[in-house]
Amino acid sequence: MSSGGTEGLFAKKTLEITDDVLLSYKNQGGFDLLGRTVDQIRTTEQVNAAMSTCCDLSLDGLIIIGGVTSNSDAAQLAETFATHNCKTKVIGVPVTLSGDLKNQFVETTVGFDTVCKVNSQLISNICLDAVSAGKYYYFVRLMGGKASHVAFECALQSHPNMVILGEEVALSKLTLMEITNKICEGVEARAAQGKYHGVLLIPEGLIESIPEMYALIQEINNLHSNNVPEDEIPSQLSPWAAALFKFLPPFIRRELVLHQESDNSAQLSQIDTEQLLAHLVEAEMNKRTKEGNYYKGRKFSSVCHFFGSQARGSLPSNFDCNYAYVLGHICVQIVAKGLNGYMATVTNLKDSINKWRCAAVPLTAMMSVRRHLRGPGAVPIGRPVIHPSPIDLKAESYGVLREKASSFLLDDFYRTPGGIQFEGSGADTKPITLTIEGQDYLGDIEILQDYLEKVRIILKPGCSREILKAAISSMASVNDVLKVMSAPLNAELPLYHFS
Amino acid sequence: MSSGGTEGLFAKKTLEITDDVLLSYKNQGGFDLLGRTVDQIRTTEQVNAAMSTCCDLSLDGLIIIGGVTSNSDAAQLAETFATHNCKTKVIGVPVTLSGDLKNQFVETTVGFDTVCKVNSQLISNICLDAVSAGKYYYFVRLMGGKASHVAFECALQSHPNMVILGEEVALSKLTLMEITNKICEGVEARAAQGKYHGVLLIPEGLIESIPEMYALIQEINNLHSNNVPEDEIPSQLSPWAAALFKFLPPFIRRELVLHQESDNSAQLSQIDTEQLLAHLVEAEMNKRTKEGNYYKGRKFSSVCHFFGSQARGSLPSNFDCNYAYVLGHICVQIVAKGLNGYMATVTNLKDSINKWRCAAVPLTAMMSVRRHLRGPGAVPIGRPVIHPSPIDLKAESYGVLREKASSFLLDDFYRTPGGIQFEGSGADTKPITLTIEGQDYLGDIEILQDYLEKVRIILKPGCSREILKAAISSMASVNDVLKVMSAPLNAELPLYHFS
Repeated sequence: MSSGGTEGLFAKKTLEITDDVLLSYKNQGGFDLLGRTVDQIRTTEQVNAAMSTCCDLSLDGLIIIGGVTSNSDAAQLAETFATHNCKTKVIGVPVTLSGDLKNQFVETTVGFDTVCKVNSQLISNICLDAVSAGKYYYFVRLMGGKASHVAFECALQSHPNMVILGEEVALSKLTLMEITNKICEGVEARAAQGKYHGVLLIPEGLIESIPEMYALIQEINNLHSNNVPEDEIPSQLSPWAAALFKFLPPFIRRELVLHQESDNSAQLSQIDTEQLLAHLVEAEMNKRTKEGNYYKGRKFSSVCHFFGSQARGSLPSNFDCNYAYVLGHICVQIVAKGLNGYMATVTNLKDSINKWRCAAVPLTAMMSVRRHLRGPGAVPIGRPVIHPSPIDLKAESYGVLREKASSFLLDDFYRTPGGIQFEGSGADTKPITLTIEGQDYLGDIEILQDYLEKVRIILKPGCSREILKAAISSMASVNDVLKVMSAPLNAELPLYHFS
Repeated sequence: MSSGGTEGLFAKKTLEITDDVLLSYKNQGGFDLLGRTVDQIRTTEQVNAAMSTCCDLSLDGLIIIGGVTSNSDAAQLAETFATHNCKTKVIGVPVTLSGDLKNQFVETTVGFDTVCKVNSQLISNICLDAVSAGKYYYFVRLMGGKASHVAFECALQSHPNMVILGEEVALSKLTLMEITNKICEGVEARAAQGKYHGVLLIPEGLIESIPEMYALIQEINNLHSNNVPEDEIPSQLSPWAAALFKFLPPFIRRELVLHQESDNSAQLSQIDTEQLLAHLVEAEMNKRTKEGNYYKGRKFSSVCHFFGSQARGSLPSNFDCNYAYVLGHICVQIVAKGLNGYMATVTNLKDSINKWRCAAVPLTAMMSVRRHLRGPGAVPIGRPVIHPSPIDLKAESYGVLREKASSFLLDDFYRTPGGIQFEGSGADTKPITLTIEGQDYLGDIEILQDYLEKVRIILKPGCSREILKAAISSMASVNDVLKVMSAPLNAELPLYHFS
């Protein structure tokens, strides 16, 4: 195996993994055994370097562990390796704290449970501190990429007073001031009950979900791509973006023009959205206090936190350990079968381990090209990739959160899960979203196959004409319905095949 | 019992604690059952309000839970209550996360173990993240007041690369630039081994241990006391302090002139010392890189963290729960015996619970007046209080840390304690400093009493003249030695007696 992360792979730095080597890393977090360097294998140079390493060592398989980006890269590698008759099979494994690699085959990713548990532990500590002192609002930003899965799961685990999901903001197209006002209304409602403290969760991706902020960040990214120096960016913004930029407090301005991450998005973790919101809410609350119309409470005080890497290197939860071991075993099977460009997956995770369903799924089944509509005759542009999945606002788990939202806001119904337990009660809990959603895609397919089989058996030669007619009519109708439902929505277009 | 913290006590807001009420708070962290408001009972008004509440309710006892400040207040209350024939007995209980209420009677405080465990968990997560990515230096500041007990214990638990104790800095009178250079030397030593990451612990009190910063903070505090508005403070500093102030980055300047805490110190938790040091180290490393004399490594990058309230409201460790239950039982005994102005204490905590020694210690035994030497004929000024105890740099546990310092710096010998466990292995661990120091003051006094008793028995009438002569000579010598050793060091002066 390569050591030194992807750079080690390119440079053919190897490390034989023996039981002895593994011993001191088993059930530990982090990526320090093989290292972690650049989180992509994408340029022709990188791909060729990886291929030459794999061919020279005549590896049977190359296992790529990561989220949407790494697994998209894995698919590209698989394609290239196959084209060049490199015998190494490329396998992807769903591992990312952000939980945004999620689809019918992937119910959750390794690491998500651990990170949500550690964050929930810390959030609940802060909730207890908040209610003890009774005088501060805590604005807690959580690492987790563009989607808000981490904040969502943590809200269900710790019951903070408020959580603002990026997906809600994007759906309702809330502006920065609308979000600020929403928080202020919460503060006022609590003050009406004599409560001057609270805890608010903010996903790190929120900033990009706010329409005007997204537009501003896009403009800045474009200027970056055109190699405009950081200090000239403000003067080259469009008038509209420049006005917004000027409205923002200086520390946010500075952070926005920082150099971008490798995946071409703003450096989300570097933007102190929690401080921006605390700043805006404080200004608005001071204004309302002064006007004295509806808020006559104490002076609003806030404390900001960002929970980033302190959750990431944690000892993994039992669930994550078990999930990762099973995925590892699946990888061995995939390589043994000689499959290329597949992802190891486990479904029915909500059930006990002996009911988990193992599978190998072609990476292409999760990939699509975002069709960018530009006037009539729209054409798909860009590479096919696995896109991060946002929170499904129609899912049952989101309904649970909405239902409890007003109680969370007002009742200080804080929940205290404590640290990750390895033995005793609570040691085997799973993400709440996972257990609520009760998805079992492959199980459901089996159920459908059973129905089809039953219909086939009932309708063997010898059945009555009436039953046959009824069946044909019913099945024709089912086909029509499914045809309509399966027609492309003009939004995404599956593509890409391995040779 | 009073609810609403000290303000509830003053306002006679009561809450009867029944088993039912306690049920949902047992073994939980935080102060949300009785609340926490102003952390002092000191002004005549406050003391009188507390007394009138206690008298009106004819309480048998008032239990004050807290650190050095609260227990000093408890002693004052006890004195006042006794003077005014208020029958309520005032009892102190040593509870504070900072661990700086520490003396021959108090081996550790309730909360210290929990906070150190949660912090160590997070530090070790960061260590794993640091070694995985291999490109960032993490500057982690830990809440814990003026003394560095929390940082010290966490260093022993998590083995970070560096820790800078306020007590070391104060002893060696290290300047800000000397500390910066010390860190830079560590960074260079690691770079020489190809390591470009690291984790550094900084106690929040460090800033006040740096001589020139202390002087600056004192000047600012004096200006505050004279009601100089915040924006005029910079212009009224002495030339020397003004020069230092100007040298500091703007964010630190802003934080330094912030309004102070109730105990008249700078708002330690508001000063981002970790960012100050990261800023200075980065500037110095850039300079050294440019000069290229001895550092030719990669660009230095830092990430800053402050671990404050996220550790404070945690579910308490088994040790803290047990310790607190025992202290509670002692309080009941103290009140039943009618003792006033005592603290509940437990010693020999390092041993199993059945060997713990319970006691009631007069608060005065822990109090002293700091003698401020001002020329000849120095007089003690100020009130007698319990002073925070710094880390004892001559203690065995500090020796252990020093011995491992160079291995910590270079070997990435990170330790991963994980979250607080409530069952299974590791659930009953105690603070490492507590177990190393092996102090048992009351036990040692018993051993001495045993020796004295043995001598007394040997030397009953009937013993030989020679033995008696030898004994007298030996005891005279012992007395002389002890007389010299017990002479006051002109530093502290025990005072204060309850009527």
